[in-house]
Amino acid sequence: METGTPAAASELANAVAVTADADPAALDAADPLAPYRDRFVIPDPELLYLDGNSLGRPPRAAIERVARVAREEWAGELIRGWEHWLGEPRRVGDLLGTEILGARPDEVAICDSTTVDFYRLASAALEARPGRRFIVTDRANFPTDRYVLEGLAGDRDREIAWLDPDVIDGPTVEDVAAVLDAHQGDVALVTLSHVNYRSAAIADLPAITALAHEADALVVWDLSHSAGSIPIGLADHGVDLAVGCTYKYLNGGPGAPAYLYVRSGLQAELRNPIQGWFGQAEQFEMGQGFQAQPGISGWLTGTPGILGLAVAEEGIRLVAEAGIDAIRAKGIALTEYAIALHDAVLGPLGFTLGSPREAARRGAHVSIRRADARDLTRRMIAAGVIPDFRAPDSIRLGLSPLTTSFTDVRRAIDRIAELAAV
Amino acid sequence: METGTPAAASELANAVAVTADADPAALDAADPLAPYRDRFVIPDPELLYLDGNSLGRPPRAAIERVARVAREEWAGELIRGWEHWLGEPRRVGDLLGTEILGARPDEVAICDSTTVDFYRLASAALEARPGRRFIVTDRANFPTDRYVLEGLAGDRDREIAWLDPDVIDGPTVEDVAAVLDAHQGDVALVTLSHVNYRSAAIADLPAITALAHEADALVVWDLSHSAGSIPIGLADHGVDLAVGCTYKYLNGGPGAPAYLYVRSGLQAELRNPIQGWFGQAEQFEMGQGFQAQPGISGWLTGTPGILGLAVAEEGIRLVAEAGIDAIRAKGIALTEYAIALHDAVLGPLGFTLGSPREAARRGAHVSIRRADARDLTRRMIAAGVIPDFRAPDSIRLGLSPLTTSFTDVRRAIDRIAELAAV
Repeated sequence: METGTPAAASELANAVAVTADADPAALDAADPLAPYRDRFVIPDPELLYLDGNSLGRPPRAAIERVARVAREEWAGELIRGWEHWLGEPRRVGDLLGTEILGARPDEVAICDSTTVDFYRLASAALEARPGRRFIVTDRANFPTDRYVLEGLAGDRDREIAWLDPDVIDGPTVEDVAAVLDAHQGDVALVTLSHVNYRSAAIADLPAITALAHEADALVVWDLSHSAGSIPIGLADHGVDLAVGCTYKYLNGGPGAPAYLYVRSGLQAELRNPIQGWFGQAEQFEMGQGFQAQPGISGWLTGTPGILGLAVAEEGIRLVAEAGIDAIRAKGIALTEYAIALHDAVLGPLGFTLGSPREAARRGAHVSIRRADARDLTRRMIAAGVIPDFRAPDSIRLGLSPLTTSFTDVRRAIDRIAELAAV
Repeated sequence: METGTPAAASELANAVAVTADADPAALDAADPLAPYRDRFVIPDPELLYLDGNSLGRPPRAAIERVARVAREEWAGELIRGWEHWLGEPRRVGDLLGTEILGARPDEVAICDSTTVDFYRLASAALEARPGRRFIVTDRANFPTDRYVLEGLAGDRDREIAWLDPDVIDGPTVEDVAAVLDAHQGDVALVTLSHVNYRSAAIADLPAITALAHEADALVVWDLSHSAGSIPIGLADHGVDLAVGCTYKYLNGGPGAPAYLYVRSGLQAELRNPIQGWFGQAEQFEMGQGFQAQPGISGWLTGTPGILGLAVAEEGIRLVAEAGIDAIRAKGIALTEYAIALHDAVLGPLGFTLGSPREAARRGAHVSIRRADARDLTRRMIAAGVIPDFRAPDSIRLGLSPLTTSFTDVRRAIDRIAELAAV
């Protein structure tokens, strides 16, 4: 089943009846993922937290795990802990890669930050296409990706061919085809976010990857807003390279370590520009001359943060246990419900929708727009509804499927309406 | 008082009477830092842990802090935690920088791994000296530094002028002067470890920094084995750039985040090659075009790991509280005692010393050498004495001043002697 395709996702959406007059308690009662909420620490159940797309809530298991790693492993095993810690970036990477991202074993490692991993992969891609001038990305891409690319373009004497897509729908296949055509034979790298951080628009990963490959360009996908919210199918779609963070839908904790994916066929062909001792074969011989380890471990750099990695594993494990298809189905139902309520309740108050209406083209958050969004966000937070604000006029409502109920959505929209009507 | 100079350190050493026949219990009783041992979690007091130079023990406060950050801040504050988390890399960096490293405020940030920070600073230094071909470092430098430099030299069309110093004494001022002379006007960067990871030799940071500056080269010091064990005086000696890890003498936990130091005068002149959103001015406007924040914050990259940072702070705070001069004095006394015992007890069994005999030239660990060191290390660990092995023939005895007693040293040497005599 190709769960990553728009067609399959549409079928899921059609199976759920979520209208503005639905009873949220009934929707919650019918939700097979509802019990997962109890697997998280939720100190204030009255707080309407709609920002799990930015920082997920802590799994109970994560809180227990970090205490155990600190007390038993760090204090008890001391340096001997490295006998098993050494394998953690790859072991947890495999859990994430094979259960959630659709990668093959030994293609994903948990390490560093999304920014550093993105820099490493984009840099490696440029080095692998030395004669080509252009990097394709879009103006609506996540800021850190854009800033990294600007730096790399300057350093490597390349140029960015900026897409400037519709702010709601994001870059289309046609947008990418046009720029590849305009710079035929001269594009080294196409890099986009799979799900747009602002509008939640899903880019057509299979088609854009195929287009880039036809042009002999490499692709780097940023999965930060899709991993743990929609199926991805990295191996099925022949994706070259990808990065993402674990602190959003994967509930890995504030600043949790990121991950990188390098397709196995490229692992030895491309070169990690930051050659560190954790990527070195026979690391503890500490010999002369860098020689990369085989597999994804050769893409590690410095010493991984073990506390952060252990916490992230618990979040990843919960998503894997719940299953990405079930999470996707609930994400569609939650966002459809939010949009139906937006149309019924908020539209008349001057809001417009900042996310795609077609469920198959939308991740697990919804943006609503009004000119006073910045001020309204502050008032919402004071009133116990926590979204986030994105300049100039968007309020993002993150509906993280494992921790958000239909009742949360209903109560939040009602409270926004009260505040907005004043 | 110039505590960073060899002369001042020698005076401290002379003030302590540590001979092979000293009573270790009496030495412990006279040790003003002895009470600090109780500030750490030590589940098995019988275990002789001599590897705090590789992974420090957990401060009690760190164990409590990580649980509190997870339960109260992550679970309770959720995304709102970023209102204070945003400032943590710089706030904790200032604590480390001003109290322990001798930097000025706003010159140190806690972020990323030592490897990534080293790559960024070395890369920035090369960019700032575009016409110069050579990087000076030594074959005995820590592996990750060497591997990073090899990668950078290849990428930036530079060459490494390798020093190949005496394995015990490390590179001397004369070694560095000779290579600067051989490549006059053509050295971009001089980068060394302040304390050698194997022998504990202290490089003459003030003199080598001055020499590099005379040649208009930039310097990057790796402080991983000196921070928290000896005074450094970054500002006093006009050091340009430095990096280091927090998991050794700073007791920050396995894979704890690293730090970087950029002298304030260079912060805007040099350019961070990994332009990430945490270095961006007006970060949450998420606008077009990278524009670095002023100060050390402009050298941040991706999202910092908050749990790891909080834990590291507790280790840094303990070192700051105990005071680096007191720590240095105890480090000298512990290593002098270990060397006296080596000479009396282990020398006759075929060991030789792998560290400088002059206290002023030695950090807080001691290497002992014998041909069967690899096998002997395994037997020591099985017998409850934990050092580490460094190929081909060295056993490092780390005598982390806040957690190691004179009794530990005596018992460890006696146990090594028993094992080595078989």
